[in-house]
Amino acid sequence: MTDNNVDSNPWSGRFTQSMDALVEAFTESVSFDQRLAPYDIAGSIAHATMLGHVGVLSAEEREAIVEGLRAIGADIEAGRFRWSTQLEDVHMNIETALTERIGQAGKKLHTGRSRNDQVATDVRLLLRGEIDAVAHVLTALRGAVVDVAEREADSVMPGFTHMQSAQPVTFGHHMMAWFEMLGRDAERLVELRRRVNRMPLGAAALAGTSYPIDRAMCAELLGFEALCENSMDAVSDRDFCIEFISAAALIMVHLSRMSEELILWMSPQFDFIDLGDAYCTGSSIMPQKKNPDVAELVRGKSARVIGHLNTLLVIMKGQPLTFNRDNQEDKEPLFDSIDTIKSSLAVFAGMLPTLIAKRDNMRASARRGYSTATDLADYLVRKGTPFRDAHEVVGRTVRLCVDSQRELDELSLEELQGFSPVIEADVFDVLSVEGSVAARDHIGGTAPAQVRKAIQRARKQLQDESS
Amino acid sequence: MTDNNVDSNPWSGRFTQSMDALVEAFTESVSFDQRLAPYDIAGSIAHATMLGHVGVLSAEEREAIVEGLRAIGADIEAGRFRWSTQLEDVHMNIETALTERIGQAGKKLHTGRSRNDQVATDVRLLLRGEIDAVAHVLTALRGAVVDVAEREADSVMPGFTHMQSAQPVTFGHHMMAWFEMLGRDAERLVELRRRVNRMPLGAAALAGTSYPIDRAMCAELLGFEALCENSMDAVSDRDFCIEFISAAALIMVHLSRMSEELILWMSPQFDFIDLGDAYCTGSSIMPQKKNPDVAELVRGKSARVIGHLNTLLVIMKGQPLTFNRDNQEDKEPLFDSIDTIKSSLAVFAGMLPTLIAKRDNMRASARRGYSTATDLADYLVRKGTPFRDAHEVVGRTVRLCVDSQRELDELSLEELQGFSPVIEADVFDVLSVEGSVAARDHIGGTAPAQVRKAIQRARKQLQDESS
Amino acid sequence: MTDNNVDSNPWSGRFTQSMDALVEAFTESVSFDQRLAPYDIAGSIAHATMLGHVGVLSAEEREAIVEGLRAIGADIEAGRFRWSTQLEDVHMNIETALTERIGQAGKKLHTGRSRNDQVATDVRLLLRGEIDAVAHVLTALRGAVVDVAEREADSVMPGFTHMQSAQPVTFGHHMMAWFEMLGRDAERLVELRRRVNRMPLGAAALAGTSYPIDRAMCAELLGFEALCENSMDAVSDRDFCIEFISAAALIMVHLSRMSEELILWMSPQFDFIDLGDAYCTGSSIMPQKKNPDVAELVRGKSARVIGHLNTLLVIMKGQPLTFNRDNQEDKEPLFDSIDTIKSSLAVFAGMLPTLIAKRDNMRASARRGYSTATDLADYLVRKGTPFRDAHEVVGRTVRLCVDSQRELDELSLEELQGFSPVIEADVFDVLSVEGSVAARDHIGGTAPAQVRKAIQRARKQLQDESS
Amino acid sequence: MTDNNVDSNPWSGRFTQSMDALVEAFTESVSFDQRLAPYDIAGSIAHATMLGHVGVLSAEEREAIVEGLRAIGADIEAGRFRWSTQLEDVHMNIETALTERIGQAGKKLHTGRSRNDQVATDVRLLLRGEIDAVAHVLTALRGAVVDVAEREADSVMPGFTHMQSAQPVTFGHHMMAWFEMLGRDAERLVELRRRVNRMPLGAAALAGTSYPIDRAMCAELLGFEALCENSMDAVSDRDFCIEFISAAALIMVHLSRMSEELILWMSPQFDFIDLGDAYCTGSSIMPQKKNPDVAELVRGKSARVIGHLNTLLVIMKGQPLTFNRDNQEDKEPLFDSIDTIKSSLAVFAGMLPTLIAKRDNMRASARRGYSTATDLADYLVRKGTPFRDAHEVVGRTVRLCVDSQRELDELSLEELQGFSPVIEADVFDVLSVEGSVAARDHIGGTAPAQVRKAIQRARKQLQDESS
Repeated sequence: MTDNNVDSNPWSGRFTQSMDALVEAFTESVSFDQRLAPYDIAGSIAHATMLGHVGVLSAEEREAIVEGLRAIGADIEAGRFRWSTQLEDVHMNIETALTERIGQAGKKLHTGRSRNDQVATDVRLLLRGEIDAVAHVLTALRGAVVDVAEREADSVMPGFTHMQSAQPVTFGHHMMAWFEMLGRDAERLVELRRRVNRMPLGAAALAGTSYPIDRAMCAELLGFEALCENSMDAVSDRDFCIEFISAAALIMVHLSRMSEELILWMSPQFDFIDLGDAYCTGSSIMPQKKNPDVAELVRGKSARVIGHLNTLLVIMKGQPLTFNRDNQEDKEPLFDSIDTIKSSLAVFAGMLPTLIAKRDNMRASARRGYSTATDLADYLVRKGTPFRDAHEVVGRTVRLCVDSQRELDELSLEELQGFSPVIEADVFDVLSVEGSVAARDHIGGTAPAQVRKAIQRARKQLQDESS
Repeated sequence: MTDNNVDSNPWSGRFTQSMDALVEAFTESVSFDQRLAPYDIAGSIAHATMLGHVGVLSAEEREAIVEGLRAIGADIEAGRFRWSTQLEDVHMNIETALTERIGQAGKKLHTGRSRNDQVATDVRLLLRGEIDAVAHVLTALRGAVVDVAEREADSVMPGFTHMQSAQPVTFGHHMMAWFEMLGRDAERLVELRRRVNRMPLGAAALAGTSYPIDRAMCAELLGFEALCENSMDAVSDRDFCIEFISAAALIMVHLSRMSEELILWMSPQFDFIDLGDAYCTGSSIMPQKKNPDVAELVRGKSARVIGHLNTLLVIMKGQPLTFNRDNQEDKEPLFDSIDTIKSSLAVFAGMLPTLIAKRDNMRASARRGYSTATDLADYLVRKGTPFRDAHEVVGRTVRLCVDSQRELDELSLEELQGFSPVIEADVFDVLSVEGSVAARDHIGGTAPAQVRKAIQRARKQLQDESS
Repeated sequence: MTDNNVDSNPWSGRFTQSMDALVEAFTESVSFDQRLAPYDIAGSIAHATMLGHVGVLSAEEREAIVEGLRAIGADIEAGRFRWSTQLEDVHMNIETALTERIGQAGKKLHTGRSRNDQVATDVRLLLRGEIDAVAHVLTALRGAVVDVAEREADSVMPGFTHMQSAQPVTFGHHMMAWFEMLGRDAERLVELRRRVNRMPLGAAALAGTSYPIDRAMCAELLGFEALCENSMDAVSDRDFCIEFISAAALIMVHLSRMSEELILWMSPQFDFIDLGDAYCTGSSIMPQKKNPDVAELVRGKSARVIGHLNTLLVIMKGQPLTFNRDNQEDKEPLFDSIDTIKSSLAVFAGMLPTLIAKRDNMRASARRGYSTATDLADYLVRKGTPFRDAHEVVGRTVRLCVDSQRELDELSLEELQGFSPVIEADVFDVLSVEGSVAARDHIGGTAPAQVRKAIQRARKQLQDESS
Repeated sequence: MTDNNVDSNPWSGRFTQSMDALVEAFTESVSFDQRLAPYDIAGSIAHATMLGHVGVLSAEEREAIVEGLRAIGADIEAGRFRWSTQLEDVHMNIETALTERIGQAGKKLHTGRSRNDQVATDVRLLLRGEIDAVAHVLTALRGAVVDVAEREADSVMPGFTHMQSAQPVTFGHHMMAWFEMLGRDAERLVELRRRVNRMPLGAAALAGTSYPIDRAMCAELLGFEALCENSMDAVSDRDFCIEFISAAALIMVHLSRMSEELILWMSPQFDFIDLGDAYCTGSSIMPQKKNPDVAELVRGKSARVIGHLNTLLVIMKGQPLTFNRDNQEDKEPLFDSIDTIKSSLAVFAGMLPTLIAKRDNMRASARRGYSTATDLADYLVRKGTPFRDAHEVVGRTVRLCVDSQRELDELSLEELQGFSPVIEADVFDVLSVEGSVAARDHIGGTAPAQVRKAIQRARKQLQDESS
């Protein structure tokens, strides 16, 4: 590194030695934080505008800065900007370019602020935009889920507990369970966005500044809802990142559970659904395979976001106030979490409409495994048998089925009556899968009528959110 | 295990072999889920009341059940109840006791529900109460923080970045940074409580029930704000636990950061504070030690809650719908997270009022390390030097101080003017730590006047929350 | 707390205030570290013996101490010992009881050591024993796996990739994959045990002691292989716990994967196996269910150990040397990890012999899904078709099967020849599942002959380990 | 995507639709797995050589393939190779290029293997090399630590427990604690390398292959010590990655603890050391700051590797055998862990020789805080006072010091005798920090003589390892 390079470091007056290449590579962040560039420029424009307003910059200086920053922004967007790792981070790259472009005025931009409040502001601006982008694709997926639910509101499938067929449900009902999961994700994004959308700018290094700044003006220019009300907290807080990644981890947990089900349903043993070829891949050696790779990858990627959440909590847990360099490590987990949930939600939103429900297979599977045993128990209770006794009767009845390899509705009336004298011919009504699902006709129940009501509520909710 | 024991299992009709002792110990949950007992009883009373209302139970049955449950609840509270691991969990223990006590009617209590919706209801009721308890002790701690802030609104200490003295701040300002951190924690509890306070009861095993239940009535009796609107989601959702532990992890991260600072400040090298003997311990071999054990333990315990958050995310991530036995593993991490944050907040709330700020040491430390260098730079800027040039000048000035082992205000005017001709005698005003903090007089800044305003806002906020 | 209690604290000379009950409960560890008691006593006996040997204790003092400790050990084992949380931890409880029992000599036991090296020694002794216990039950499980493998060496089942049937394998081969996984676990335990079995005693608080101790003698008495060679490292190191929990986490990951497979195979859609009733449970509402609860719980518990690993890494990551109170938090995750893997391995070792392979179902499933497509491709290659071209041909053949809902061996020779002219009548030999598995006859391949060789190697390995 | 592109997918015969761009971007791995290229080529060369040897390839085919692969390798190394995300991964990119280059023979390379065993082989080869690289830089750091220890074998500093000065130690002794920590890391790398260095090649997709392959020959060509002995395990095992990242996490925990200490020692409150300017940075606003950024970043990066460990455990925990696409997610955490520990170790190895110990400050600090109180207690014991009584006496003596703001050696003999009549004039010998450290003269103790012996052992160990 030449003397000249040393001079380009912002603290060059203090140091006598240059950093060697290894350390430069180790400490630089511009390779990943250049993603902050548009937000850094927006923040700087607002800061300069405010400095002009309060008289710290002259009108000419302010105009030169704003114009210069806009030109740099255009260069960056067009891919014309030359990033330098020697200049360490996005902030120094842009400020150095500004000074090269407009001269002395550029050196005044940093008046009354520090990289500590600058980077916190940049990250919050970026995250605010990304939350909106995530919410958008999440809404698309929720709509796709409701579409499938509507199409399959009457389709009977086995409902599972412990991966055992438990009771018949409708596929539409199952889809609406997914809708509930994703709905909570949407709620959380709305709430945490308010805590993201607070402005640290003005905290300077940690204590505020002695310049007569107008923080409210900056906040208004940048669309922040509120100010971070303590300068030390403002530069050291990363709660908003952690809270976002927590919500992201839950989104991925939901997508992972949905993926787990799609993978099971695609297996030849279940054979409940098919997914569009576009969302599957084949095998280099087994030409017959149709692998649900997209679902598998989403399942795998959920671990990644859980890992990132952990990383960020651990980074923050050990730090005294205020800013420590450890915090530089917040960006990669945050950015990767954003990208992972955006792309995972997007492929899911694209994949779901290609799902074909193999209704006959599902229904046949629902009929197997004594899935209406609970209905038989309920029948007995309605005929006056105490619940726990009815349960006992049904248990013995099922054991006969297991031993004789028959389903419940394949037993004769006489056989059934051998287990309980209260059983009559009408018992066969409750042993059909259609009868079973239709009987669960209360809010939250799997009856097709209830599923349709849930779909109506969902449609209205999506509409309300978008208006 | 005797035949009799086998019969006491709820599924005894189906099985021919008894479980051996190892498996019983492996699968039982009553050793930890008995903590749910009061909620289980409250939920059962509401359920029975509703079943009576819709005609599934007679008035006599309903009364016998409610009375029986109350008596059992009293036994449990008085420590007279005999828990049995053979009966596996809290639900079967109570139901079995009920039937022993009131006979046949007890067997009807479970009509129209399942342990799947029952346990989800119990956990939500417990967590709702615990959130309120956590919020209460959090408020106490926030009040204690404001008290210290008020006492130390003018006390000057070094503000740190990178663990290096950066600029003088007031100790009151530092405390108000803590207040901001804890304030966000309080916000999150309010928001997530709404998602906890939804009722799964009525979902039965997974599909709802064929009995004519009235879920809204149960919800009202139990104080739930809303119903879980999909039965499959209702029994498989554990988002509400994860969301709580996420918030708990952030609370612990905050307490850990605060602990880290207390530990540093207690070290003989810093010597900024003293903590009450009640919150410290000694050494068995080094009688002179006064160790901030409580703070160290809180710091260590933060890792525990981060671990629990991870555990619960991982448990849920791999499960297809609906209920799987993996979910039994949700309780210990949840309960331990609750206990950890409650006790950690409580000891902090007790410890903080015992904190004695060693103001002279803090101020002396703030004076060292060229902590008003930024003020000198700002002075130069106000005299017309561009920001980056001023920075360069100050850097060279500091190097002289380092080389000659003096502070900035120990240089002579001539020496200072050697670095910049714009420096005049008034420079010494900005080089005092009191001048430095007073100059940061904007919202969020460290000026004592601003700290007092922040304290006023905090007092009002605490008052508003409690009314 | 009375004055008297204050005096019972080892540092009572220094403090003027008593700790209040909350802090006592917060800081005590005796509720969980009393598990260390037998190791604490063994360590103290060795220490006293050595102190006697080097002349720091008189023969009478040494004998009184050793006898007193043995009596206390007997009391503890018999459940007669009264633990006090006021005495904070296992060490102070025992030492206090010793002094009460034998008077002045008891006060000399702690000469030349500290609780810092004492607790590290205790934990290492406990863990060494537990590693041996884990290795023992792991060996039992590995033997059970080999038994199943032997029984099912010829049973054909589908081999899965992406949860899709890929190629036929034998069930014995699948079991031997489990054996490989568990074998690596055994290797790791052997290696890490050596790093556990090093003695910290003699490090005292952190710097060693000025008494003329003989560390080698203590190590020999306690069966340690080596000494911790730096006193500061000796009291602050918890690598050995982390390394053990890392290995434990891998054991649980393996058991979780095995559980995942058992759960799938038990599902009615797969219906490949049955597990003994003793290892399953039923449903309170669905009497027909037979849930593989033990496997589900093991799968859930794997998350717990992963969480503990994370917790301990995080606890240690932020601590400067040497001992900090954070370290008290190491015990619960360690103990729970030990208990979790021991009980999980034990239930697996009990459960596996009850596994019944439904060979007909497995074979029928292996025949479906074009599972010998690779064999057809290999056939074509042997007839001179380049690999990638053969792959293409088979892909088109499979598509015909999909469209006409037939398996590969249900196509006519003419149809097959329509895809490639090199196909002749002998093609039907390679399309059977038995032909397919038998053909993979190299080390590591699924041919029954190879599986039998693998079983032989495994038997020999287990025998070698036990001798 | 054109038809042509579809055809380039290895499973194109089976599918009728093309994947859209989003899915292609979501599923591709070539952007990160191209790092495997040299290992993929080496593996393919060995495979082709073996196929030639057993007669599956002709000599001409084998030669064409080997030559073609070498040319491609040269292209890649020179940056001339054009990677295509449409070809998904490194394997298909290289194989496609081979066939373009050498025609039909290229299509035969994949005979008898699958991407499943291929990628597992590639990752193991890469990791084996990286372990050696890590071991190399770890050795360099260990050497640097010993150098500092030797330089500072006599320098007295305070030894800390609970961040309180406890007893004097030598800085050399402290450094040798670091050496012990890093030495365990080196041990672990040696052990786990053996489990990495086993060959999965020959497992094909999951079941082995029907070609007459010679796995031992491949293993020898590639330098593997052993074969993976079960094909299903071979393609699904990622233990070796997890085990490596576990060891990497411990390395980072150690570096984080060391960083924590460097950061403390660099703070103006401690002022124990200085670090070379090359390893520190300044502040954009506070020109006086010299921040130990490299240490802070290492501390932050430790969280990253802990996160990666968690990610990989979670990915594997939920997967049934054998290969699932989730596994594609193993590479980024593995590669990033490798890079993080290599660079962190390297900057530490560079930074440590620049460390300057401020011996006077350290010694002055060691003298403060009654750090020889334990020595006084030992003195009393040697004069016949029981240990716990001596402890009590010293506690009261220290309280006098605290109250009168003096150190122990500043009390008069009369004052000391007021606490215990056994005290004589020789007491002042044991109250000096030099006397204190010299007295701890046993293996592992802090006496300079012992530190020098430890250094000798360390030098010998490093020499033995390198020969």
